[in-house]
Amino acid sequence: MRDVSIIAVGQTKVDEHWDKSLRHLAADAILAALREANPGRIDALYVGNMISGEAAGQEHLGALIADFVGLRGVEAVKVEAACGSGAAAVRMGYIAVASGLVDFVIAMGVEKMTDAPGDVITAALALAADGDYETNQGLTFVSINALLMRRYMYEFGVRHEDFAGFAVNAHKNAMGNPNAMFPYPVTAEQFAQARMIADPINLLDSSPIGDGAAAVVLCPSDLARRFTDKPVRIMASTVATDSVALHDRRDPLSLQAASLSAQKAYFIAGIGPQDIDLFEAHDAFTIMAALELEACGFAERGRGTWLAKEGEIALEGRIPISTMGGLKGRGHPVGATGVYQIVEIVQQLRGEAGPNQIKNCRIGMTQNIGGSGATVVTHILERH
Amino acid sequence: MRDVSIIAVGQTKVDEHWDKSLRHLAADAILAALREANPGRIDALYVGNMISGEAAGQEHLGALIADFVGLRGVEAVKVEAACGSGAAAVRMGYIAVASGLVDFVIAMGVEKMTDAPGDVITAALALAADGDYETNQGLTFVSINALLMRRYMYEFGVRHEDFAGFAVNAHKNAMGNPNAMFPYPVTAEQFAQARMIADPINLLDSSPIGDGAAAVVLCPSDLARRFTDKPVRIMASTVATDSVALHDRRDPLSLQAASLSAQKAYFIAGIGPQDIDLFEAHDAFTIMAALELEACGFAERGRGTWLAKEGEIALEGRIPISTMGGLKGRGHPVGATGVYQIVEIVQQLRGEAGPNQIKNCRIGMTQNIGGSGATVVTHILERH
Repeated sequence: MRDVSIIAVGQTKVDEHWDKSLRHLAADAILAALREANPGRIDALYVGNMISGEAAGQEHLGALIADFVGLRGVEAVKVEAACGSGAAAVRMGYIAVASGLVDFVIAMGVEKMTDAPGDVITAALALAADGDYETNQGLTFVSINALLMRRYMYEFGVRHEDFAGFAVNAHKNAMGNPNAMFPYPVTAEQFAQARMIADPINLLDSSPIGDGAAAVVLCPSDLARRFTDKPVRIMASTVATDSVALHDRRDPLSLQAASLSAQKAYFIAGIGPQDIDLFEAHDAFTIMAALELEACGFAERGRGTWLAKEGEIALEGRIPISTMGGLKGRGHPVGATGVYQIVEIVQQLRGEAGPNQIKNCRIGMTQNIGGSGATVVTHILERH
Repeated sequence: MRDVSIIAVGQTKVDEHWDKSLRHLAADAILAALREANPGRIDALYVGNMISGEAAGQEHLGALIADFVGLRGVEAVKVEAACGSGAAAVRMGYIAVASGLVDFVIAMGVEKMTDAPGDVITAALALAADGDYETNQGLTFVSINALLMRRYMYEFGVRHEDFAGFAVNAHKNAMGNPNAMFPYPVTAEQFAQARMIADPINLLDSSPIGDGAAAVVLCPSDLARRFTDKPVRIMASTVATDSVALHDRRDPLSLQAASLSAQKAYFIAGIGPQDIDLFEAHDAFTIMAALELEACGFAERGRGTWLAKEGEIALEGRIPISTMGGLKGRGHPVGATGVYQIVEIVQQLRGEAGPNQIKNCRIGMTQNIGGSGATVVTHILERH
């Protein structure tokens, strides 16, 4: 088993890209990565995507994108794990390079969401939930998260306003990210007054849909310095699962898969949460950020919102999260999000995060969540 | 890099399973495989599926199926490569075990197609084609294959009746397979008189849609004999791609990805087409069977139909194909098909193919095709 490093990253701005098709977005991200470092040969392409069939009228993205970027012939498939698809594609690329079967891999995520009507997207996103036991009862993906948030507030005596810090932090950080969809500030007052979506989740609890693509180039660590002087090593890459349906979990407020995935990653990397310099969290909703911080050992149970209230998640805090805007501020093109997270950690570890740069960071972690915690993909990366 | 073997297989009958949901079908196949050989621990699950979002109202199959079969927690994702999804999932499982990251993997394919209306399925299957340049012009997946078949007939002076042998052989073999959807014979006369679907493709040129699931359990070859006395080794596992759109290929009658995938597999296995004892072909349409036989080196260009006419594809012929009925006779639950092919080769190599047993077979090959040849996954398996 070989050590694997990231030698290049690329991304598009997350936006309403009405002038670009899915394949153009994908190509923009891939070609941007290959402009950073091009090993001259690519052996395989793994595409993370969740809803291209429903939202963009296209499946079979592996071959489609490989051909469009000039890689006709190479091994190429799509990987799907709901909103965790992006990081799952990177995990596949990691396994492939680690195996020794291939040397140079592009792992990328792409999603084109804004061409389809809102009701189509709402229905497509609900495919991440349990079709027989949740969606068929009328639950949307937002309302499932609303159930979680309501329960959390009840169980731990937390008020809605306690979640404001997540949105405020994400938007603040988005202002320093040229690829963010919402690069403007929001205040705690605006958060409190935002339009209700699915009680208690309001507009500023929720990340926006968007079009976007992000890509990384992977190769064996011992070859990485041939192509870049700033390689980033994948210390750990893990996937864990839980029941898709919320009601099937013994304790819905404990994200078991997030916990398991993080624990496995810490074990493989030989470190603990205290060694993580920054964390790209899956803040699709503020409640997810809180639950995830708890599952990964950054906060005690029921105390996730305190990290936000006390400024610990800020760039200069103890555990900075959403350092480039997170899902909330950068935007959440579902199947691409997990790759954006990894791209952003690479930018930070290289010292290329501009005004959002975390000082002296060496180890970063990402966690990409599919559904309401049913598939969780964790990556720990280090500068080397 | 470790050698990988198949220690167990399971499948459901391909049928209209109106009494079973997608997850039940998947579980039936997985549990059947685990009844054959259960290593007591499963580290990862790879699910091949193409259109569950459109046809079954469900994505996120990795976590969903893992949980339902009692594997909550394990790494699990869905792999999609159009009609090549099933074998692509096995390829992922192969890579994962070969890498040394995991030991025991279930790779499976499932598709539930008969609950949705026909027009929904027709549109969903067309997602395998190029959405911007083919489907948007009104082409369905059948009509794309009809263009190929018409061109083939024109170019090589082949008549429609020359394709009859593929359908006759597949149906004949399906009669010996208890899991086949169409276990009854068809004659060349019936083939000639069958209802036209998309000229020149008629009903008996076409494989049927169906519901079904198939699964294999993989582990390192050096552990295989702990769990079974009939392990089957994966000699080669390859994926190659081509343009998704037919018009983008220099020569549409030469399936480049099929050829490339087969050549890579022969090279890795250290053998040639003359060493293959049986071949599970992707006979979604009779034209595909002919083109594939040519691409893999079993027939010369333009001569694929001759193998059928001369009986060489029969069980006792030079290169038996569709030995358990193929896509035409067993049925074609798209995302599951590639796994069915591998399960059937395993049955043959173990000597468990009943009345369809190929005598003294040692090496078998499968080829699973996504789209009109844009993704092609080849596996070569041997008894060991």
